[in-house]
Amino acid sequence: MRRAQKARRFVMDITVAIDAMGGDHGPHVTIPAALQALKRHSEINIVLVGLAEAIEMELRSHGASVGPRLRIHHASEVVAMDEQPQSALRNKKDSSMRVAINLVKSGEAHACVSAGNTGALMATARYVLKTLPGIDRPAIASTLPTLHGKTYVLDLGANVDCTAEHLLQFGIMGAMLCSCVEHKPNPTVGLLNIGSEAIKGNEIVKEAGELLRGSHLNFYGNVEGNDIYKGTVDVVVCDGFVGNVALKASEGLAQMMRSFISQEFKRNLFTKLMGLAAMPVLNAFKRRVDHRRYNGASFLGLNGLVVKSHGSADSFAFGFAIDQAVEEASNGVLRRIGEQIAVDAHPAMVSVS
Amino acid sequence: MRRAQKARRFVMDITVAIDAMGGDHGPHVTIPAALQALKRHSEINIVLVGLAEAIEMELRSHGASVGPRLRIHHASEVVAMDEQPQSALRNKKDSSMRVAINLVKSGEAHACVSAGNTGALMATARYVLKTLPGIDRPAIASTLPTLHGKTYVLDLGANVDCTAEHLLQFGIMGAMLCSCVEHKPNPTVGLLNIGSEAIKGNEIVKEAGELLRGSHLNFYGNVEGNDIYKGTVDVVVCDGFVGNVALKASEGLAQMMRSFISQEFKRNLFTKLMGLAAMPVLNAFKRRVDHRRYNGASFLGLNGLVVKSHGSADSFAFGFAIDQAVEEASNGVLRRIGEQIAVDAHPAMVSVS
Repeated sequence: MRRAQKARRFVMDITVAIDAMGGDHGPHVTIPAALQALKRHSEINIVLVGLAEAIEMELRSHGASVGPRLRIHHASEVVAMDEQPQSALRNKKDSSMRVAINLVKSGEAHACVSAGNTGALMATARYVLKTLPGIDRPAIASTLPTLHGKTYVLDLGANVDCTAEHLLQFGIMGAMLCSCVEHKPNPTVGLLNIGSEAIKGNEIVKEAGELLRGSHLNFYGNVEGNDIYKGTVDVVVCDGFVGNVALKASEGLAQMMRSFISQEFKRNLFTKLMGLAAMPVLNAFKRRVDHRRYNGASFLGLNGLVVKSHGSADSFAFGFAIDQAVEEASNGVLRRIGEQIAVDAHPAMVSVS
Repeated sequence: MRRAQKARRFVMDITVAIDAMGGDHGPHVTIPAALQALKRHSEINIVLVGLAEAIEMELRSHGASVGPRLRIHHASEVVAMDEQPQSALRNKKDSSMRVAINLVKSGEAHACVSAGNTGALMATARYVLKTLPGIDRPAIASTLPTLHGKTYVLDLGANVDCTAEHLLQFGIMGAMLCSCVEHKPNPTVGLLNIGSEAIKGNEIVKEAGELLRGSHLNFYGNVEGNDIYKGTVDVVVCDGFVGNVALKASEGLAQMMRSFISQEFKRNLFTKLMGLAAMPVLNAFKRRVDHRRYNGASFLGLNGLVVKSHGSADSFAFGFAIDQAVEEASNGVLRRIGEQIAVDAHPAMVSVS
């Protein structure tokens, strides 16, 4: 079930700016995904940002054209997938990525989505939108599947060195994101550590545990790596180095297990027949662990909503990133984070840390 | 294929001390595993350490008894699985764990194996055996399956705060372990990071990259989380916090994927029949990702060989931990680490860091 079907919306007429040129496949992926999203969400408008000619050509190939809910905003440059963030920031002021973010800044769009270069997207978003008051550093949050649903995990790679205060801020942002999008009034927050006891971990993590315990969040305590997939808590907080490694190790393991299953079924004629017979069940399993359904990482802590799609996403996966942006815009994520940060993040303390 | 069958041995007549009381199941697991190991390895002797009565009773239940290759060394105390490491160290001087380590110290055993409390085992091993010259901190190393074989990963949780020099030492120890046990003359070493470029990561990791690049190791460069399971390198180096989270996240994900497969096959009568038909293939897959085959973590950097089994191991899994100890003792791991540390670890620099 796509997320759009279950949401209770607070804001109508959402406009999403899409970096049409971003990602490994550019318009071939972003445009069909945008067209599908317009069908799924009757209340949204989409602005396709990028080279007008390329966008129009792709629209034509789908028998589609601009209209009241779909428009094109021309941007003359494209940020390359391997471009240095600072170079993109300095030299590509009319890139599709930058212009899409500008539309969020000016209020013409409620959120933007890009499958472009992560570093450039974060640097540009931070430069254009700035961070929310009380937030030192934006974080990258995404959901991972669990035995019973999903867990929000942050940070997934934006910050390789975090203080305890940063981890507290991540906890607040993750809890508000989960609360708004999943409609959970008081989501549980766990601190990723190497043991469940409060005395475990390094000094920063121990101090972060104290700060989280003293906050208004529903703090569960320490969780371990396996708790991510057990679904022990709604939100898992960690620094970006640890989060990134855990995420990528998981991707690697899932890929390996899929290869093993496939190899075992291809071993000989007999096992191939078994594989054919079991196909419906194997397909149901594949659907359940399909990482495309978890595509769409939120850049949290910025003064505007930015969702990052995997660069290699296909249009099915990119659609989930658009849905994530729609959900966040519809459910007031920005406002909720701002309110909770004011209560819990002690901006004065943070700014001197 | 069990590892014992493929090894080229340099040392004969290995004696392994086994903490017979350690782990969730104590002698019920350790004794049958020891008896099987004696059958597998004609060149080894085993000393079972623990409460003599309990050990004798378990031996009798298997129709076995002591003999020239199997003896009992009585120890009157047992370290509880949840006991504080410092308490075990101070108060349980006649514990099965401590006495097994003492046998390594005195040279009566070439290695010891315990499924007991990890913290107590590390604290006791470090206190009794001390670290090798040039090594600041012992690390925990284990193998993980890859698409084509296995990767050695360290540290898996002994050190939550590491300097660049510690990471270099881990690289040396991991490479020598892999070289000795896998008979690879020049194993590749990767540094776990959040990107492949040398500029990625935090300051400690960048500095560790420089040290590894300047060492005599076959340094590959940075690797990411997914490279662990791709088998990109033979040895992956990381701090204990990151390694522990990556390992446990992997365990959690593997468990979740197994549950999903099982749930999908149990969904209805039709899928149950599919499951029965595909059973041989599913069993082959399960065998391939059976974590019991990867049981046996090496405590490296101590002046003696200590192998830690999972606390919940069954006798099949515990047997792999015994095999690991036999492999390390037979192939001169201690000597090789000492030699390479003298070449690469700059003890003077390490001691002031």
